[in-house]
Amino acid sequence: MLTAETTQKNMVIEGLVASKEWEALVAILKKMPVVDIVEVLRDLDLPDLIEVLGFFSSEEQGIIVSDFDLELQEELYKKLGPKNFASIFLYMASDLRADLYQELDREDQLKLLPYLDKKTRENVIRLSSYEPETAGGIMSTDFATIMGDMTASQAIEKVRRDAPSRKMIYYVYVVDNDMKLHGFTTLKDLIMADPDASIWDIVYKDFARAEVDEDRETVAARIEKYDLVAIPVINKYGQLAGIVRHDDAIEVIQAEQTEDMEKFMGILPDDDGLDYPETGVLLHFRKRITWVASLAIIGVISGMIIHRFEEAMSALIILALYMPMVADSGGNVGSQAATVVIRAIALGQISLRDWFMILFKEARIALMLSVVLGIIAFGKILFLSWGMAIPEQYSLYFLAFGIALALSLQVITATMIGAALPLIVKRLGGDPAVAASPAITTLVDITGLLIYFGVAVLLFF
Amino acid sequence: MLTAETTQKNMVIEGLVASKEWEALVAILKKMPVVDIVEVLRDLDLPDLIEVLGFFSSEEQGIIVSDFDLELQEELYKKLGPKNFASIFLYMASDLRADLYQELDREDQLKLLPYLDKKTRENVIRLSSYEPETAGGIMSTDFATIMGDMTASQAIEKVRRDAPSRKMIYYVYVVDNDMKLHGFTTLKDLIMADPDASIWDIVYKDFARAEVDEDRETVAARIEKYDLVAIPVINKYGQLAGIVRHDDAIEVIQAEQTEDMEKFMGILPDDDGLDYPETGVLLHFRKRITWVASLAIIGVISGMIIHRFEEAMSALIILALYMPMVADSGGNVGSQAATVVIRAIALGQISLRDWFMILFKEARIALMLSVVLGIIAFGKILFLSWGMAIPEQYSLYFLAFGIALALSLQVITATMIGAALPLIVKRLGGDPAVAASPAITTLVDITGLLIYFGVAVLLFF
Repeated sequence: MLTAETTQKNMVIEGLVASKEWEALVAILKKMPVVDIVEVLRDLDLPDLIEVLGFFSSEEQGIIVSDFDLELQEELYKKLGPKNFASIFLYMASDLRADLYQELDREDQLKLLPYLDKKTRENVIRLSSYEPETAGGIMSTDFATIMGDMTASQAIEKVRRDAPSRKMIYYVYVVDNDMKLHGFTTLKDLIMADPDASIWDIVYKDFARAEVDEDRETVAARIEKYDLVAIPVINKYGQLAGIVRHDDAIEVIQAEQTEDMEKFMGILPDDDGLDYPETGVLLHFRKRITWVASLAIIGVISGMIIHRFEEAMSALIILALYMPMVADSGGNVGSQAATVVIRAIALGQISLRDWFMILFKEARIALMLSVVLGIIAFGKILFLSWGMAIPEQYSLYFLAFGIALALSLQVITATMIGAALPLIVKRLGGDPAVAASPAITTLVDITGLLIYFGVAVLLFF
Repeated sequence: MLTAETTQKNMVIEGLVASKEWEALVAILKKMPVVDIVEVLRDLDLPDLIEVLGFFSSEEQGIIVSDFDLELQEELYKKLGPKNFASIFLYMASDLRADLYQELDREDQLKLLPYLDKKTRENVIRLSSYEPETAGGIMSTDFATIMGDMTASQAIEKVRRDAPSRKMIYYVYVVDNDMKLHGFTTLKDLIMADPDASIWDIVYKDFARAEVDEDRETVAARIEKYDLVAIPVINKYGQLAGIVRHDDAIEVIQAEQTEDMEKFMGILPDDDGLDYPETGVLLHFRKRITWVASLAIIGVISGMIIHRFEEAMSALIILALYMPMVADSGGNVGSQAATVVIRAIALGQISLRDWFMILFKEARIALMLSVVLGIIAFGKILFLSWGMAIPEQYSLYFLAFGIALALSLQVITATMIGAALPLIVKRLGGDPAVAASPAITTLVDITGLLIYFGVAVLLFF
């Protein structure tokens, strides 16, 4: 973006909005990409927005409204009424139109349907019937089809006829009279081919496809793997039911990443994938409390261990003072190791077969971490507890050595647990990301306390 | 994917590989998508691989080898020698070719250059000269151009002439004689247009573009925002220098996500973006030690606070027992709040202007969390410490109440700190993801201890 130019244009637009010179505004907007038009329009008051939309054709209105968020689409529907809104609805992108339809109350749905032509009505109802987490739930029906027995020039002619209402056409799908999918070709191949060549000569018959009820994450991964602009979605009869576009795939990948990160922090994912601001306080609370409350209850085990060594701590209060330090170090390094392993699994860099390589590598990293953190701990104890009253049979150096040793052992154990846990969860068929950081913290708290008091009893009593 | 069909085909392929029937294997491979061909070929021994490649045309070899990983490409170069490899290199995707060239030793680079034609040589050297983190570093030069004063049919004719060597053509860029970029059109628009229409009538002049030295993350975000198949990259003279494709954008988004997650766990990102297995033990260690060692040193502050209340703990040993529990709860809820806020910022759902909404929402969530976790803590203490010897002026109920109260206050404080810290870091111009979980844990440890002993002194002494 040429910044100076853009800033200047934005100022002109702001001026026209302020003075409500809609015609001049629309003249500028019409030359801009849809996303940018939407950014200007969504900040207008609803009556102004409707006035401005009136300067666009129904088709343009459909494309623009497709990019509004659901809330604004609904407001617009309520304000315009079903009859007026239907002419916009007709031209909206089929997948987004179905999303809006699903969002409407049953009553509003029924009011809208009579104003739609038969084809649109059936399309909306069919697309709304798929589960949102599946390929069917995110696919659109804005694709172009040709028949295998056409020539290249006949095919181009058909695409020309069908194309105006399609948002994106690069791949052209080859079907038979029953809409069974036999392959695809690209606009480029059609143009490159001899006009009289048969489509059968330029069709790709071995190609990546998805099924309507496949998980959307798998489908997005396939689009990514094959670098596709869109993937065809077929139903159980092998008929072409829709396409999932590359931009849908990016959205899915983003959503799944959010889910992974949330899982990793012990936050339950929600299927709705709501924005932070849109999610209510109660839902936020429910998403977070489950894990932390469970872990608080599991923390009873730590509590029992600590109680078991109550007398040791009474006799040697310095043990109580450094107990949190040892536990914390374990939590940090364990979470780090888990993060690295989970991410490497998610990106396909490592698989379960590599478990030995992973654990051997982590063992060496853990050794280095333990030496450095052990030395820091030793220095810290000397600095903090210098001159502290300790029972005379002990020297501070010896106590500091023992505590630092326990911390080093804890760093090694925690790193190995952090690296192993995601692998174990995956081996058991779960999502590695649930080897969440709070879970690791709680687990290594327990091992840490056992190591800590084990070393203390061995060396000091 | 139709699983039964796929499995059967894979078995046939495995059989042909085992019996080294290369001609029959290639006949099957030629019908498959490139990604799948590569999956079969990369497992072959190098001499077998070279034999199989020989059945493909130079152009096909270029496309296939483009999809190998860098290591295999280099092995192939070393084995084939510069002269033979040059004919493959010529047909590789321009961006991947430049990546390979950058990976070669200076000596190998110089050996290869004489075998390239002038155009390829200049292209490789130019593309290799951009920083890897910029648009220039990830762009390719596989685009089609037309002139504004052509007619639609002349433009289609030019695309037909230029297209064979291009990996992907959907957008067609409109340039003048100096390669200055004036706009773009699509194959679809070219086909839809009247053959005699001027290109100027169907060109999009107001469009998203990137500059060669722009950060690749910004460019990927723009591709995502405008749902583009590719974005044109211009140099400082406004000339079309290359394009960045949607699949490159997905790769960048994945890499940035890894960086965010690592930062969040206090792991320093590395520019090379190496795989987990490729990263050496020492680099892994360096990436992790910086934060944990810093935090261990900052932990001196917690140590000093604990020492300050040494006598209180000696007098009332139950205080020492529950000190870690209070600290841990704070770490968990604080990290959760930070995760949610960081992710919402990354996805553009919230911005700094929303700080009041965010903190008000988090305050209400924190209140609910604190009530539940406080009640659990109260129950835990009664259960664990029932029958414990405590000084007779205290009742266990009262002590449990005090400790649970401190925990509740800590949950509220930690949640607010976790939510506020990413906002503060962003306000100061930093990346919110560095408000890392270990940093929050260490910070809320300090506030937790102050609250804990503050409440204890107030209620119990």
